[in-house]
Amino acid sequence: MEKPNEKGQCWLDPVSVTPRVGSIYPAPFGAPLAGREKRALGDALKLTQFGVNLVTLAPGSWSFQRHWHAKEDEFIYVLQGEVTLVTNAGQKTLTAGMAAGFPAGKADGHHLINQSDKPALYLEVGTRAVSEEAHCSDIDMIARKEGGRFVFTHKNGDPYP
Amino acid sequence: MEKPNEKGQCWLDPVSVTPRVGSIYPAPFGAPLAGREKRALGDALKLTQFGVNLVTLAPGSWSFQRHWHAKEDEFIYVLQGEVTLVTNAGQKTLTAGMAAGFPAGKADGHHLINQSDKPALYLEVGTRAVSEEAHCSDIDMIARKEGGRFVFTHKNGDPYP
Repeated sequence: MEKPNEKGQCWLDPVSVTPRVGSIYPAPFGAPLAGREKRALGDALKLTQFGVNLVTLAPGSWSFQRHWHAKEDEFIYVLQGEVTLVTNAGQKTLTAGMAAGFPAGKADGHHLINQSDKPALYLEVGTRAVSEEAHCSDIDMIARKEGGRFVFTHKNGDPYP
Repeated sequence: MEKPNEKGQCWLDPVSVTPRVGSIYPAPFGAPLAGREKRALGDALKLTQFGVNLVTLAPGSWSFQRHWHAKEDEFIYVLQGEVTLVTNAGQKTLTAGMAAGFPAGKADGHHLINQSDKPALYLEVGTRAVSEEAHCSDIDMIARKEGGRFVFTHKNGDPYP
């Protein structure tokens, strides 16, 4: 199949984008994300100012560890199925056609869990700041982005192995 | 109906967001956009770094005059129906589930036209640069954003009334 942008093409069918499965979190924090498949549509279309991922979440899987971003806005839009949004306010079921947004610097961690028995599909959009800190709410971890790469540390700054 | 963010709520159902109909282009350039309804989901969710709009395009309607952005990346994802993407390369039909992206500074104007007999629904995402120039491809107009407001001029800089 022809890849997007091989000829400067500005459109794509997401089936042409190879999904990334699972997580880059240090063990054991990636385990709940094992059923997550992510297609980087924005990257495939040569966008650099924000990322756009098409995400499939298998039943039982999480989107991320619950977190909030210091510098980057984040947005999600549910396309198929349903997901449970978890924040400090508790749980809220989001069905296809519903949206959520998380302004940079708002210290209320969020993530999505598929508590249904069918796959869920959603779009996630996030700004691409030069540096970033994502603070986890329920575990002792901060993800720091430096020079485009993520480094995972304890909250006291000690690195994970 | 409860409005999003009245209680710091981070999610919404788009039916709660009042749509904006039509265009702010100077006459007669807004006429082809009369069948466009736009719900500003990102604004409703207090996002400031990028905009996210849910757009309904009636049969025959255009998304915009064909244009390209000097500083802002743009992304679209088709949710329902189909739209015709027009660029320098010609026309391409995008059906539900397909995406397109327009990197800042790429001087290839684009817009969407609903050439079908059913409404089309899509998401559009665009960076929020402090200043911006959107260059129109097929008409003598540039849209300049200054201090958050758009000003429309001829390509020689003369303002439209």
